[in-house]
Amino acid sequence: MNAEVIAIGTELLLGFVVNTDTAFLGRVLAGLGIDCYHQVTVGDNPKRLSEAIRTALRRADLVITCGGLGPTVDDITLETLSQATGRPLRLDRALLREIESRFAVRNIEMPPSNRRQALVPRGAVPLPNPFGTAPGFMLSLKTRVPGTKVPGTKILVALPGPPSELMPMVENHLAPKLKRLAGGSVLLSRTLKLTGAGESEVDAKVRDILAMKGALTVGIYAHPGQVDLRITSRGKNRREAARRIAAVERKIRSRVGALVFGTDEESLESEIGRLLKKRRKTLAVAESCTGGGLAQRITQVAGASDYFLGGVVSYANSLKESALGVPAGTLQRHGAVSAQTAEAMARGARRLAGADYALSVTGIAGPSGGSKEKPVGLVYVGLSGPRGGRSFRNFFSGNRAAIQSKAVQAALNLLRLELLAR
Amino acid sequence: MNAEVIAIGTELLLGFVVNTDTAFLGRVLAGLGIDCYHQVTVGDNPKRLSEAIRTALRRADLVITCGGLGPTVDDITLETLSQATGRPLRLDRALLREIESRFAVRNIEMPPSNRRQALVPRGAVPLPNPFGTAPGFMLSLKTRVPGTKVPGTKILVALPGPPSELMPMVENHLAPKLKRLAGGSVLLSRTLKLTGAGESEVDAKVRDILAMKGALTVGIYAHPGQVDLRITSRGKNRREAARRIAAVERKIRSRVGALVFGTDEESLESEIGRLLKKRRKTLAVAESCTGGGLAQRITQVAGASDYFLGGVVSYANSLKESALGVPAGTLQRHGAVSAQTAEAMARGARRLAGADYALSVTGIAGPSGGSKEKPVGLVYVGLSGPRGGRSFRNFFSGNRAAIQSKAVQAALNLLRLELLAR
Repeated sequence: MNAEVIAIGTELLLGFVVNTDTAFLGRVLAGLGIDCYHQVTVGDNPKRLSEAIRTALRRADLVITCGGLGPTVDDITLETLSQATGRPLRLDRALLREIESRFAVRNIEMPPSNRRQALVPRGAVPLPNPFGTAPGFMLSLKTRVPGTKVPGTKILVALPGPPSELMPMVENHLAPKLKRLAGGSVLLSRTLKLTGAGESEVDAKVRDILAMKGALTVGIYAHPGQVDLRITSRGKNRREAARRIAAVERKIRSRVGALVFGTDEESLESEIGRLLKKRRKTLAVAESCTGGGLAQRITQVAGASDYFLGGVVSYANSLKESALGVPAGTLQRHGAVSAQTAEAMARGARRLAGADYALSVTGIAGPSGGSKEKPVGLVYVGLSGPRGGRSFRNFFSGNRAAIQSKAVQAALNLLRLELLAR
Repeated sequence: MNAEVIAIGTELLLGFVVNTDTAFLGRVLAGLGIDCYHQVTVGDNPKRLSEAIRTALRRADLVITCGGLGPTVDDITLETLSQATGRPLRLDRALLREIESRFAVRNIEMPPSNRRQALVPRGAVPLPNPFGTAPGFMLSLKTRVPGTKVPGTKILVALPGPPSELMPMVENHLAPKLKRLAGGSVLLSRTLKLTGAGESEVDAKVRDILAMKGALTVGIYAHPGQVDLRITSRGKNRREAARRIAAVERKIRSRVGALVFGTDEESLESEIGRLLKKRRKTLAVAESCTGGGLAQRITQVAGASDYFLGGVVSYANSLKESALGVPAGTLQRHGAVSAQTAEAMARGARRLAGADYALSVTGIAGPSGGSKEKPVGLVYVGLSGPRGGRSFRNFFSGNRAAIQSKAVQAALNLLRLELLAR
């Protein structure tokens, strides 16, 4: 079974709204083992929507539209679907009562335009919408689709556009129905998250695995300071798919080793949190060019207060001296962006907070402030801990945000490797 | 002139990544007066990508692809575009040198796979990519497109997928070229950004304006701690559209006053930066429940070092005492989450950094740590400045990230209003 998603709305084409509905549907369909080969967006234009529906019905078994079901003149989905499928609209009495009662509860008179929302194409099964007035529906087309040469059964689903209405409708009503129809196979996926090497370096280690075709595939995705390897497998059931994935995961791990810091929903900050808690150790930070971004990443983890004491954002040199005790001589001789300053910052943060470990970051995030000796992208990350201190020099590429993000990643990874080596 | 955008990537179909590239391109194209009628997403599949390109070249004058230009085997765009247009790939020597030099600077040997990224279809104009190794390109097809019956000139553009590479490439290289080609009517938009009031409160003040139809429309969009009003107008030229927008902007501002903190690309942090620079004042921060998020927002502004000295992330109470000098008695009597602690934190940060102003945040971001008297979402923001100190109690709704984000927004707005009142 394969699907196509059609998102409807001129606001999507104009980019005023980022389309999250199709990504959500993509995840749901993949989880049901339904392949999705095309996602299409068209505006509030009946002619182009009609064409998109015909094209989709020709190449997919399941066509899902999102949006355009509201009460306004912009909302063209209902009429267009009715015409494209040759199914006239009928008033659903039960739906009308439900919509009327929703207005009655709020003591508001129902605008006549909302009566339209009780219309569904003949033969359609309404999908309830407790979070809005526009219901969705599901329609089986057993006959030939007008204007196409489609035999057999096609399924057409219309969903409302707002994610707050679409998501519960899919989870509570559509997904269970599709599960029965899809039957059989499932698609399972698992992501290995790597840091400490670039995309091409990782690619070189697992190129043959990335080239695999068939029931199991592996994709590579680069983020600032992080590379993800996503293993996706089809199987008769979850167990079969999971077994296939586990075999390939072992193979990948044997090649990339400690570059892997976590899987799926795990993050570098949750991993260091886990390690610190396990070892009953505490952490402090001192950062300049990341401007609070390192502390912020660490405190994204709920419960970080178990091990994170806090830190200093020493943007100005005066704070490096006053709060962290970096000697004025170190700053003068080596500069704020130097191994010596990075190490002194980490030592100072560790002492100030009374922490077991401290991380530091000092560098030039740009866009200005670079020089020939110390260019934009030069970042020192430092660590101070029970086994002493050390620091590393990095050259990061990208814009200000990318450099800051890579610097945070490098600092967190430094602590992870230290905690693993203990 | 009309355009079609093709996003390429199985990760988009599977919903692992939300596609923000097409929304960005939608805004840029609209700004140039270029209509976009279709956005299509296909996976890393040469056959379906090839079909999508042919279909797009049939119905659009300008076809833009995003993604699939990287160095890995997944990246199929280059070969597929070459085949679909009948333009063989050629090695661009200048591009190769540029890519090689990027590796040389970082003292890394270039993996052979990166050599592929210096290939472009014959006749294509490369679009430089200073933030990654994959260049984009622009190709004019003056002849008939193979497999279609297209006469005249079509323009095909290939862009890299990562937004951090695509966005500067579009802004600095593609948009200026398209501007020369497009001409005609324009669509202009301007966003007013408000903080300090919720969506329904803003809606009630401008409901009649939101209901306007025709050449000018106004939309309302809510974010945590912020409401945007987007005015969009079509016009014969930029001047006409801008005049229409200015008239409505005046009307909106007369109703919402100082709720507006900026427009378009301006942010609350850039606005306080502007005010601090203008008044030659400096700023420090002390934050607990936002965990570095306040400092991080302030330092997102390039050049923040002109006015931002730094601060303390006092996650643990011990740091509130040792680094900020919050009296132990204050913490004991009133607790870490109290007006008294918030004010003492701001005073301490101001003194430690020697700053003119200091902001503080202390609260309970959740998910745990709340009590009946001090529930999750209770946040005090404090300010210390030349005119003394003060603090405000807030109750924020939402999850941990939303509460942190609203707290940062409230602290920044407190300083903005203080600086405006001076």
